[in-house]
Amino acid sequence: MTFHVRLLTPHVTPRPQKLRELAGLDAVLPVTFSHVGLREGPASIESAFDDALAAPGVVAAALEAEAEGADAVIIDCMGDPGLDAAREAVNIPVLGPGEASMHAAAMLGHSFSVVTILDRVAPILRNHARIYGVAEKLASIRAIDVPVLEIEDNEQAIRRALLDEARKAIRHDKADVIVLGCTGFLGLSRELSDSLKSEGLPAPVVNPLRTTAMMALALLGAGLSHSAIAYPPPRAKPIRGFSLPEVTKS
Amino acid sequence: MTFHVRLLTPHVTPRPQKLRELAGLDAVLPVTFSHVGLREGPASIESAFDDALAAPGVVAAALEAEAEGADAVIIDCMGDPGLDAAREAVNIPVLGPGEASMHAAAMLGHSFSVVTILDRVAPILRNHARIYGVAEKLASIRAIDVPVLEIEDNEQAIRRALLDEARKAIRHDKADVIVLGCTGFLGLSRELSDSLKSEGLPAPVVNPLRTTAMMALALLGAGLSHSAIAYPPPRAKPIRGFSLPEVTKS
Amino acid sequence: MTFHVRLLTPHVTPRPQKLRELAGLDAVLPVTFSHVGLREGPASIESAFDDALAAPGVVAAALEAEAEGADAVIIDCMGDPGLDAAREAVNIPVLGPGEASMHAAAMLGHSFSVVTILDRVAPILRNHARIYGVAEKLASIRAIDVPVLEIEDNEQAIRRALLDEARKAIRHDKADVIVLGCTGFLGLSRELSDSLKSEGLPAPVVNPLRTTAMMALALLGAGLSHSAIAYPPPRAKPIRGFSLPEVTKS
Amino acid sequence: MTFHVRLLTPHVTPRPQKLRELAGLDAVLPVTFSHVGLREGPASIESAFDDALAAPGVVAAALEAEAEGADAVIIDCMGDPGLDAAREAVNIPVLGPGEASMHAAAMLGHSFSVVTILDRVAPILRNHARIYGVAEKLASIRAIDVPVLEIEDNEQAIRRALLDEARKAIRHDKADVIVLGCTGFLGLSRELSDSLKSEGLPAPVVNPLRTTAMMALALLGAGLSHSAIAYPPPRAKPIRGFSLPEVTKS
Amino acid sequence: MTFHVRLLTPHVTPRPQKLRELAGLDAVLPVTFSHVGLREGPASIESAFDDALAAPGVVAAALEAEAEGADAVIIDCMGDPGLDAAREAVNIPVLGPGEASMHAAAMLGHSFSVVTILDRVAPILRNHARIYGVAEKLASIRAIDVPVLEIEDNEQAIRRALLDEARKAIRHDKADVIVLGCTGFLGLSRELSDSLKSEGLPAPVVNPLRTTAMMALALLGAGLSHSAIAYPPPRAKPIRGFSLPEVTKS
Amino acid sequence: MTFHVRLLTPHVTPRPQKLRELAGLDAVLPVTFSHVGLREGPASIESAFDDALAAPGVVAAALEAEAEGADAVIIDCMGDPGLDAAREAVNIPVLGPGEASMHAAAMLGHSFSVVTILDRVAPILRNHARIYGVAEKLASIRAIDVPVLEIEDNEQAIRRALLDEARKAIRHDKADVIVLGCTGFLGLSRELSDSLKSEGLPAPVVNPLRTTAMMALALLGAGLSHSAIAYPPPRAKPIRGFSLPEVTKS
Repeated sequence: MTFHVRLLTPHVTPRPQKLRELAGLDAVLPVTFSHVGLREGPASIESAFDDALAAPGVVAAALEAEAEGADAVIIDCMGDPGLDAAREAVNIPVLGPGEASMHAAAMLGHSFSVVTILDRVAPILRNHARIYGVAEKLASIRAIDVPVLEIEDNEQAIRRALLDEARKAIRHDKADVIVLGCTGFLGLSRELSDSLKSEGLPAPVVNPLRTTAMMALALLGAGLSHSAIAYPPPRAKPIRGFSLPEVTKS
Repeated sequence: MTFHVRLLTPHVTPRPQKLRELAGLDAVLPVTFSHVGLREGPASIESAFDDALAAPGVVAAALEAEAEGADAVIIDCMGDPGLDAAREAVNIPVLGPGEASMHAAAMLGHSFSVVTILDRVAPILRNHARIYGVAEKLASIRAIDVPVLEIEDNEQAIRRALLDEARKAIRHDKADVIVLGCTGFLGLSRELSDSLKSEGLPAPVVNPLRTTAMMALALLGAGLSHSAIAYPPPRAKPIRGFSLPEVTKS
Repeated sequence: MTFHVRLLTPHVTPRPQKLRELAGLDAVLPVTFSHVGLREGPASIESAFDDALAAPGVVAAALEAEAEGADAVIIDCMGDPGLDAAREAVNIPVLGPGEASMHAAAMLGHSFSVVTILDRVAPILRNHARIYGVAEKLASIRAIDVPVLEIEDNEQAIRRALLDEARKAIRHDKADVIVLGCTGFLGLSRELSDSLKSEGLPAPVVNPLRTTAMMALALLGAGLSHSAIAYPPPRAKPIRGFSLPEVTKS
Repeated sequence: MTFHVRLLTPHVTPRPQKLRELAGLDAVLPVTFSHVGLREGPASIESAFDDALAAPGVVAAALEAEAEGADAVIIDCMGDPGLDAAREAVNIPVLGPGEASMHAAAMLGHSFSVVTILDRVAPILRNHARIYGVAEKLASIRAIDVPVLEIEDNEQAIRRALLDEARKAIRHDKADVIVLGCTGFLGLSRELSDSLKSEGLPAPVVNPLRTTAMMALALLGAGLSHSAIAYPPPRAKPIRGFSLPEVTKS
Repeated sequence: MTFHVRLLTPHVTPRPQKLRELAGLDAVLPVTFSHVGLREGPASIESAFDDALAAPGVVAAALEAEAEGADAVIIDCMGDPGLDAAREAVNIPVLGPGEASMHAAAMLGHSFSVVTILDRVAPILRNHARIYGVAEKLASIRAIDVPVLEIEDNEQAIRRALLDEARKAIRHDKADVIVLGCTGFLGLSRELSDSLKSEGLPAPVVNPLRTTAMMALALLGAGLSHSAIAYPPPRAKPIRGFSLPEVTKS
Repeated sequence: MTFHVRLLTPHVTPRPQKLRELAGLDAVLPVTFSHVGLREGPASIESAFDDALAAPGVVAAALEAEAEGADAVIIDCMGDPGLDAAREAVNIPVLGPGEASMHAAAMLGHSFSVVTILDRVAPILRNHARIYGVAEKLASIRAIDVPVLEIEDNEQAIRRALLDEARKAIRHDKADVIVLGCTGFLGLSRELSDSLKSEGLPAPVVNPLRTTAMMALALLGAGLSHSAIAYPPPRAKPIRGFSLPEVTKS
């Protein structure tokens, strides 16, 4: 038995490097990953505006993933665009790294901080923490002030900035766990964790994509999916301007 | 001076009767109302799925309203679809009846209940109450179990059901203010208020559209609009599949 | 139709300049303002002690306002002295700028700060925020350390101090909306808003008197008054030492 | 050494029987009790309106108590009228049974309910619980629907009603401690506690006056009084219409 | 690579049947389970008293598990006895089903209920929910009134009682996810889930042991363990009366 | 009548000097104090690990205290180890200075800070504040970075450090009451209070042992003990490895 997990990048910029963040998991665990982006939507997700334009595509892609036999869907963005809508549309688990990472962090210590890209996404993540029920353990949200699409061109500066903000989160905000707050931060969690440890600040660093993939497997292994009472299928009704795959959820 | 308020019904079903809910306000106040629906989207809003399909159209319509000189936009749905995204896109105030009605209710008593259409929207409204910061005063959300598009065909049953749930909200949940929880409940607030009063339960009944229109005027009269720190304009980036009016917010 | 709003300054110091803060509203809106102070009470409101001495006079003045045909009463102090007692006594809406400004601020952004006169009033305002149900969105309360009766003699210093504290509220406390925290700060909100904007901190600044006046009109326009379940009329009983107008609320 | 505790009944109805509720404490503890009522104020306290008319008298009486050498003041009403104002005025501890009883109850179990006179005071007590910081442990507030001044004429009915509501609080609201919610319930706590125990519901019943008297002694014995940072003396300023003893607090 | 997970039953009653609850996981996942009980402690865990007597043994057994090469430890009790102490003692992840199940439940819906053995453990679980940061999503805790050691003799009655309380949790408390609230409920989750679904109440039922085992694998797969800032090793100091394995955590 | 209060130091290091902290209370109040330590347990309490090893001994010692006729038990540690377990075991009140001090502090001002020994105990105390229901009034927990057993050798440094952190708690964290956060801080509260007052920061300083002793007397004088619904006696069952006095609680 092998679980098929669909990674769904909720924008239109090609990001083949994403699967590398999950590298090796399929070697030791009974899982295969597939990866898609959106046909329609914004080039990256950094605002409620971007979320709004990404969500219809996320719903469509979740329906396609289910139709193609995926066992679970991961939305590849800390803002979890379209999360509840996709859960209403399909029977399989749909996970967002925002939710899964914050719950994982909550289980690893007393208080966690999220280190993310831009100050402007902090209220969005904080509101999500309220809805997900983990706000009580959220110490702070800190930003390094780099837009998503400029991450890869500034890797050294980003390593320094992440370390700097994580350090402040631990020292000033009393966080004892760090969540990397953007799924565009690739290949950085281990090094950040090591750097913090070498400074005497041994906080775990939650890698959002990898942690969310493992959480998806945890739900699948435990035979769990999202509550159909919480996320009932949408009522059948005319829709104009969006051509979505059929909803078969009952 | 006359304020121009745009009422934006966030779905594709024609609803000309909506403006009647605001009738008379323009006779005594310096305001004119215009009304549009969406070109693309669902036929009604009853789920996160519907919200996701409505939000892009709401953003587009808010941009159009601003371009056409509107002074404020009201999204005609208690679920406030696209609210934050629209606020990021335009400079003028954008109000949602979910937010405005719950804040009005919070100012009118110690504890309010929302009486709405279907149980399935209760968690959506409750999550909004958390984000809007009024959850502390939310006594309960009760539903009458009638879909939006069947409201007009069941008016007598709806009057009875609203009264019944409002009564329970006051007696059992200790609410002292009632919010009508769907902007499709037209012309019902006054009668409900009178019925409650005649039963010795003198709770104000917040009519969401009318109250939101007055809140829009209140902001305009006080020279206020939404915070551009809270709702900064979206960063310029490629968007595929949606043709939106230009964002001119700086 | 014209609404008559009574502005009630809850102390014994003559403050004719207060109505200037509402100047112009009556030109564009169907409203007239009248203004009274107290016959008995303290010279200003800066403590729970002052509140206690102001509240009986506020109740009496609210009863007089209703008897004289006012459609709504505004208590001219951020501490909202006598607010609940006055609501129990009369049928017309009674608004406090503390409550109305904080709810307006909550609707304008994600998180607001109040900038007020003295540190000693901060716990009073914070407790009010808890009762009003908006504490979740209150980022901070900051004070400029100037007593009420010295505001007018220190206008330049006050402008600088307000700007300084507002800037810190935005930068350090992550507020995105500012509430002017004393109704004695006259004619300052527009300039403060402009100064913040010129510094790249475009937070709306809530002028408490003007905003509360517009909120009163919003309630009147929506046909709403305070819940008689939340604020039932006081039971008839002997009262010694206070001669109040008759309570006619049923 | 003997502590002198002043019991201050915050209304104008003579209540000599109050001291009987403290009978015996002065036999075993180094304490004497004195008792005063108000010269001006309402006949009983059942509303925010009554609170407002009682508070100035409470402040005056607290100042007199301090001038006469009292070591602590207890305000004889669960609504704690004038509590913060009196604390600002004097150096000695001022206790309210609402606050002291709810904190005692919070220390005796996981969750407490208050059983009081009238539904209308429930929101007042609930708001106080929020401000006192004990709302998290407040299971419910239940009322027996008898006004203060009719308590003594209905003693049998009141015993039955208190037992009935306490039983519901334990069974339905999951309270494990009961607070008698009116200081006019005299001589009833022991019997209520016994009745509950005989029904297999062994919840402690907090007698508000007796418990508050012991809390006053606890503070005095520990050398503690209220924070002068939290309750700074009122700023000197003209007061019209109230003749208060001099404030000597520095 | 195979992960070794130690199941630690925190009492002295032999419970070989526990591993059957995890049956099959080791067939599809790279995991082996070992199982131990305590040498010293109570016969079952149903109170804070039992917790106190179990915790030293849990710490010792966690140290032994780490010394014997286990990759993670699961404490086999919803009360999570000794959880924080064990985390301080070892480097490997230590999971409690109380914490892991409640976080899993929080991710599966809007609001969950725990159905457990005895009313007396409800406050313990509720306090844990507060500390774990998930109280916001806890709808209720319901009990079937059967002690742990009588579960196996009453299986039919227990199935009925669990279904009855789960149904009430969904209908009355508005839960949309059910957590089985005792790790002594063996082999019941699937049937309960099916029964609820057949009644039109499709709530996921979280099997605490199986879900916690998968959460342990999720942390191991993501390379995460508990924060050493949150759970620093105990300071070396004399201990009398307990002979514990050496703490090697640095 | 004289109350007998047992002070129970929950570790194995002899601490005869503890009773000096209560000196004089027995001269003015009808109380005698006895003092015991543990036969088995750690040398001091600074972690969850230490708590776990102390709790069984606390339960045993509480049972012994009750058998020997004590009227109340005080656990001599801010971490309140074994508190709930001991309450389940005995009928007499069992108090912890963590709980009693924080409730006393909550009654003395708007917001309190705890100044304690090591940063590592801060999350433990914060979690207790959540469970005790006083988290809303907890401004901060600050540590002076000195282990318990080194307090007496560093008295001058500790005085300075306590004053420094208390000052910061008042100025930066807006505390208006200070709680000494370790019962090993002996003879320091009065001086700290005086020092703060001389700096213009007149915050009361809660001496945990003395305050808890007075709270015990307050409960005894009011005829109150802990709720037997909240803390029911443990169910009879085999216990291996601990020899406890018999539980006679019914």
